[in-house]
This record gives sequence, C-alpha cells and structure tokens, in this order.
Amino acid sequence: MFFELYWQYFVVGLILYAICRGGYIFYSKSQQKTLRGIDKKNEEAYEILQSSSSSSSSDNEGGEEDELTPALPKDLKHIPLEYTRFSSEESLRRAEDFYTLMNARRTIRHFSNEPVPIEIIRNIIKTAGTAPSGAHTEPWTYVVVSSYEVKQKIREIVENEEEINYKKRMGKTWTTDLKPLQVNWLKEYLTDAPYIICIFKQLYSYREDGKKKMHYYNEQSVSLATGILLTAIHYAGLYSLTSTPLNCGPALRTLLGRPLSEKLTLLIPVGYPAEGCLVPDLKRKHLDEIMIEV
Amino acid sequence: MFFELYWQYFVVGLILYAICRGGYIFYSKSQQKTLRGIDKKNEEAYEILQSSSSSSSSDNEGGEEDELTPALPKDLKHIPLEYTRFSSEESLRRAEDFYTLMNARRTIRHFSNEPVPIEIIRNIIKTAGTAPSGAHTEPWTYVVVSSYEVKQKIREIVENEEEINYKKRMGKTWTTDLKPLQVNWLKEYLTDAPYIICIFKQLYSYREDGKKKMHYYNEQSVSLATGILLTAIHYAGLYSLTSTPLNCGPALRTLLGRPLSEKLTLLIPVGYPAEGCLVPDLKRKHLDEIMIEV
Repeated sequence: MFFELYWQYFVVGLILYAICRGGYIFYSKSQQKTLRGIDKKNEEAYEILQSSSSSSSSDNEGGEEDELTPALPKDLKHIPLEYTRFSSEESLRRAEDFYTLMNARRTIRHFSNEPVPIEIIRNIIKTAGTAPSGAHTEPWTYVVVSSYEVKQKIREIVENEEEINYKKRMGKTWTTDLKPLQVNWLKEYLTDAPYIICIFKQLYSYREDGKKKMHYYNEQSVSLATGILLTAIHYAGLYSLTSTPLNCGPALRTLLGRPLSEKLTLLIPVGYPAEGCLVPDLKRKHLDEIMIEV
Repeated sequence: MFFELYWQYFVVGLILYAICRGGYIFYSKSQQKTLRGIDKKNEEAYEILQSSSSSSSSDNEGGEEDELTPALPKDLKHIPLEYTRFSSEESLRRAEDFYTLMNARRTIRHFSNEPVPIEIIRNIIKTAGTAPSGAHTEPWTYVVVSSYEVKQKIREIVENEEEINYKKRMGKTWTTDLKPLQVNWLKEYLTDAPYIICIFKQLYSYREDGKKKMHYYNEQSVSLATGILLTAIHYAGLYSLTSTPLNCGPALRTLLGRPLSEKLTLLIPVGYPAEGCLVPDLKRKHLDEIMIEV
C-alpha cells in the first residue's frame, strides 16, 4: 500500500543517490588528475605508462604475453667498457679548461650571413646524436635548413605567431621580463644565419616488425641532446641562439614535411656573429647559488 | 488536477534533464582538456602564460601598468661580443675532434667507489651553469651528495619506488623494452658512486623586491643544462648514468630539504667505472637517420 502510493519518491531518491554517487566518482577521478598534475613529471610518466600499457594490451590480443619482444635485440651483447683513465690532476685540469671554454659561450641575436661549410654542421649533429636517451630510443630529428627560400618561409611563420605571442598571449610580466634583453617578434636572424637547425622530438616510431616503438622521456632526451649540440657548436667556434617558437610547431612541421609523430621543440640558428654584434651584459650565478654539497 | 497527480514525474524529468545537462558540460570540459593534452608543449606554454598573466594582473592591483619592472635590470647594458674566430679548417678539425671525443662517452651502471676530488665536480657544475635559460632565469639547483648515509637513504627511496614501477606502473611493453639493457629496480650504483648529482628544476623563485620571478621553460632549460653537464663529466674523464627516478621526486625533495618550488628531474651518479664494467653493445643511429638537409 505504502510503496504503491509513494513509489515515485523512491525513484527520485534512487536517482538522487545515483547522481551523488556518479558525481563523487567523477569528482574523485578529476581530483586524482589534479593531484597527478601537481607533479607534472609524474603525469608525463603516467601518460607514457598508459600509452605503453595500452599498446601492450593490443599487442597481446592475438597471442600470449610472452610474445612481447623488446625494441632492442633480445640477446643484446654486453661488452667490456673501453676507456681512458686520466690522473686526478689531469682530470681537474681538463675540467677547469672545459669550464673556461664553455663560460665564453654567449647566445647571440645578430648573425652574419657568411657561409659555414656544411661538413662542420654534420659533425655537430653527429655529436648531438651521441646523447643518451630513454631506453636508447634516440628520439630526435635535426632538420638543417640552408635554403634561403625555406628560411624566409620559416621567418614569416615565426614572426606572424610571435607578434601575436608578444601582443596577446604572453602577458605583461613575461614581455616585461624580456625587455632588458631587447627581444621582440622580429627575427632577422632567421634569414641572416647560414643555417637554422630545427629540432624535432619523436613521440614514437615504428619498429621493423611494424609495431609501435614508444619513445620514453623523449622531451627530456631531446633537450639534453640539445645541450650537447650547443657545446659542439661552441667548441667549433660557431655561435647560436636557443629559441623556442611558441605556437609555430604545427606550421613548421608541415612546412618541413615531418610526420605527426614528431613535434618541433627548438629552432637554433647557427653561424658567425654579425659585425659589431652586441650581447646583454649578463652575469651568471655563482657556484654557491647553484650547488649544494651534502 | 493533472499536475497535482503527476507532479512527481515532472520532478523526475527535471532531474533527468539536469543530470544529462551536467554530464554533458562535464564531458565537454574533459574533452577540451584532452584536446589541450594533444599538444603538450602548447599546454605547458599556456600554463606559463596563465601564471605570468595572473601574476601580472595581481601586480597591477595597487598601481599603474607601467609599474611592472622586469626581473633583470631595466637598463641592462649591451656590450660588444668578445670572440675568437677560427679558420674554416680549424673549425672543422675541432668539430671532428669533439665528435670523436663525445662518441666515446658511454652510460655506465657499475661504478667503483674510488673517491674523486670534489674540485673536479665543482668545475663540472660550474660548466653546467653556463647553459642558456629562458629569459636568463638559470632555473637549476644541483645537490651533490657524497655522504654515505644520505646516499643510502636515496637508494632506499629509489629502490622501493622502482620495485613498484617495474612490477605495477610501467606496463609490459616498457619493462620488455628495458630487458636487453639488463636494468631492474636494484640500484647498487647509488651507494657505490662517490657522488650523486640530484638535479632540481626551479618552477619559480623570488626577486629581491619580494615579487615572484617566473622561470620560463624551466624543464627544457634544465634538461639542456644537463646535456652540458654530461659533456663536462666526460671531458674530465669521469663516467655517469642519466637516471630519471619515477615517482621518487617528493620523497627525495624532502630528504634533501629543497623547497616546494623545486622539482627533482634527474639523478646522476658520477665516478669511475667498476673493475670489469660491461656496457650493452649499442650502436648509434647514422647521420642520415637523424639529419635532414633542406
């Protein structure tokens, strides 16, 4: 009797319960996401994990778990390390010399159009290619542009986006912080420098057996390789500018014909400094500001 | 009459509508998030933009827009670049020599506990400190651990997390890909190597006037500086292992007493190879696999 009269209230109650419950689950999931967002690195790692475990489950669809084969040869040999041992004194002298050399490196924004033999650039790229990478995936592509027409197109894309970046997207604090460095959205160096090295990170690639090969820590690996690249550029007596073209990635990827699995991370013009090149009078932090001994 | 009898149905209908509507809004928001996630780099850039523009608007609350002062001195001088010019032949020779040197670098996983003079490490850290960084923010802290007790604690934290990573978090593809490299969650090198360099990226810092200083592109800058660090380690004749301790960041940050504004990005043990140290017989990609000339 009672139920027959008031069943609608039960229905409403049940639905309200479902809403609260569903809402709670959704909320706690998004909370978890936020928590994960706190540690960006972790989040990236989780993405790698998710993509790797999802590809692993699809790999398994047609077979046994044991069928999984690594991207590197299963029976990869391990060989004795060959190395030159310096004395402590020699090590210290070399460490000091290298610091003195690298401390003379400066980023420049005014390039001469004087040509540079391509063989120097090839050695520099080979040196960058010696960088370590997550699970030895070597997730990098270096597009070296010397064609004036292509450099002009790159400059056009970058200047258009950068004008919007500076005027609208970057915000007052960022553009104010950049003022002392006298930079803006005009990038003459993109057509002046004999080379622009466009660095792409590869999110993934394909193995010989057609399976997707995950590139773990590709962002970190490529940035780290760029550090070695800059060192090689400086060692060879050339100059560079480390630039991050905000929002230009997709247009430049299309222009340079790179696949969707690659993303542009840096644009590095390389060459000699222009006559009378000025640099901002910046000081570097002292050792005790960057190193803590425990 | 009709409404009085059946009002409960209207209530249920209304609630169902609210659920669908709410669900749709929630769904489309999470879709937007996913879409933004597609271009990770852009998302990061937007975060920087948002944080910089929100801090700029709070800066402006009490005053004029013109009151914003850059983090670097407003009247930063620009001075002539000092540089040594090599001939083309000399440049090429240096580029080749440096490639030969760097191509002999190998990551090792078996370290001798033989001590290394701290002065060598100080020069190496100083060299890493010459790296370029977004708006010259130098967003890095190098904690160099030589204390055996602290190395033991680091090892404990890392091994515990890594065991969970390998067994649960990393997924079958990833752990399979690592098998040929013979790595697992046991990290003897963390107590064997004379030094562990713990690299922290600083998300922000504070200026002398107490205002927050944004560190643009801190992740990329720190990874790039790590490339220069590895170069310096190798140049000095020492060996290292580039390791990314998944999920260990917060515990190690607390152990080493670093502030919340810093995040651990890499753990790099440094020292001499152990007697009879083996390395996987890896080949590096050829130049034509990593370089495209346009």
